[in-house]
Amino acid sequence: MELFYAYQVEGSMCRLDAEESTHCVKVLRHRAGDTVDIIDGLGTLYHCRLTLDSPKGAEAQILETTANWGSHPYHLTIGCCPTKNNDRFEWFVEKATEIGVDRIVPLIGDHSERKIYKTERALRIALSATKQSLKARIPVIDEPVSVKDFINEPHNQAEGEVLKLIAYCFEDETHPRQSIMDVLREFKGRDVTVLIGPEGDFSKEEAHNAMTTGYIPVHLGPSRLRTETAAVTAAEAVYLNFI
Amino acid sequence: MELFYAYQVEGSMCRLDAEESTHCVKVLRHRAGDTVDIIDGLGTLYHCRLTLDSPKGAEAQILETTANWGSHPYHLTIGCCPTKNNDRFEWFVEKATEIGVDRIVPLIGDHSERKIYKTERALRIALSATKQSLKARIPVIDEPVSVKDFINEPHNQAEGEVLKLIAYCFEDETHPRQSIMDVLREFKGRDVTVLIGPEGDFSKEEAHNAMTTGYIPVHLGPSRLRTETAAVTAAEAVYLNFI
Repeated sequence: MELFYAYQVEGSMCRLDAEESTHCVKVLRHRAGDTVDIIDGLGTLYHCRLTLDSPKGAEAQILETTANWGSHPYHLTIGCCPTKNNDRFEWFVEKATEIGVDRIVPLIGDHSERKIYKTERALRIALSATKQSLKARIPVIDEPVSVKDFINEPHNQAEGEVLKLIAYCFEDETHPRQSIMDVLREFKGRDVTVLIGPEGDFSKEEAHNAMTTGYIPVHLGPSRLRTETAAVTAAEAVYLNFI
Repeated sequence: MELFYAYQVEGSMCRLDAEESTHCVKVLRHRAGDTVDIIDGLGTLYHCRLTLDSPKGAEAQILETTANWGSHPYHLTIGCCPTKNNDRFEWFVEKATEIGVDRIVPLIGDHSERKIYKTERALRIALSATKQSLKARIPVIDEPVSVKDFINEPHNQAEGEVLKLIAYCFEDETHPRQSIMDVLREFKGRDVTVLIGPEGDFSKEEAHNAMTTGYIPVHLGPSRLRTETAAVTAAEAVYLNFI
C-alpha cells in the first residue's frame, strides 16, 4: 500500500505538493482515474480518485474517509536533547514515528553539546516514516527549546491528566527513580510526556526543576543506553504498555 | 570508562589482539604501569595493570575480577531474518546489544530475499556496542540457519524452561496471536527466544511448524514495524519486562 501526503484538503479534494505529485505521477505512473490513498498528516486517510495527474500539483477526489487511521491508544510527547551526531537523533525520529509518537521536542539542556538544531530533515524523516509505517498522523516536531522553558510550559494539561516523566542517569538519594514500566503500569490515563537528556545527562538543577513542576524521575533499566536509544526505549515502553 | 577486549585470559594475564592493542597503546597512549579495564566477552570484567605496551600485542596483569558485569536478568535469543539492506540488520545488532541480548541467529526464511548473510561485520558491531554500553558479555552471533532447521534445533532446553515466541503479521484464525507483553508478564522463567520474520513475513508453513514445536504466536502491537524495528521491539519487550 502506497500513501501520499496532501498538503491541502478542501471540500472533497486533496492536493499534493510537487514532490508528492512527482512521486505519484512520474515514479509510480499514476494517471487520472486511478484510485490512490492519501493522508492529511493529521490522522485521516482518504481513499481517492486521481483527477489531475500533473507532476507539479496532482489533485484527487475523495471517495472514502477513515479517521484515526493507524492510530495508537495514547498521546506521547518525547522531549529529547539532540545528539552530537545528527544521524543518531534522526534515527530516533524515524523509529519513534514507526513505533508511535505524537510530538517530538528537541531540547537544549545545560550539558548539551549541540545548542542548535534544525528541524527540516527530521520533518522529512517523520513524513517518510509515517507513510512507510501506514499511519495517517505525522508527529509534530517542535522548534528546539531549552529544558527550562519546556518544563515550565503550561502544556496540554487542560485536556486531562498528563503523566510527566524525566529519565536521568545520576543517583539522587532524595528522589529515588522508579522503573518507567512500574510508573506506566499504574497510570490510567493516556497522555504521557518523557524527557531524555543529552550525552552528559540533565544537570541536577534541571532534574530538580522538573520534579518541582510534577515530573516523576524514572530509570530505563540497568543498561547504559545512548541518548537516542534511551529515547526509543521510552517510546517502546509507552507503546508496549498499551498492547 | 574505556574497555578493552582480551582474546585470551590465561592465569592472571589478559592478552589483547593487534587491533585492541593499537587502540590501547597508540590511540589512547597507555603505557606499562597504567591501570586498564578489560573484558573477556564472556561476562567478566578484569581491572588490570598493563605490563606490556606493545601495539602489536599488549598484555596486562589482573588486579581485580568482577563476574557478570553489566549483565541482565534474562537470557534472550533473537532469531531474525536479515534485511535486504545490511545496514538495517546491523543497526538491530547494535541496538539489541546495547539493550541486552545474548544470542542473535540470522534466519533464512521461505520468503527471505536475502539467502546469504556474512556475520563478520555484525560480530565487530556487537563487540563495539558491548564495550560502548559497558557490558562484559558479547552476544553470540550464529552462522545463518534456515527457519526450519532453527525451529527443530534441540535448543538449550536442558537448562530449564524456555519461552519460545514467534512474531508474524498475518492473521491465523486457528491460532490467534497474543500480545508479546501479556505472554512475557505471565512467564516466570528467564530464558526467552523470539523469532522475527523477513520483509515478506514467515510462510504459513514456517509458522505452523514453529507452533507444533512449542512456539507461541505473538504480535508486537498495532504498528506496522520494519523487520529490524520489530526485532528491536522484541528485545525491548523482554528488557522492559524485567525492569
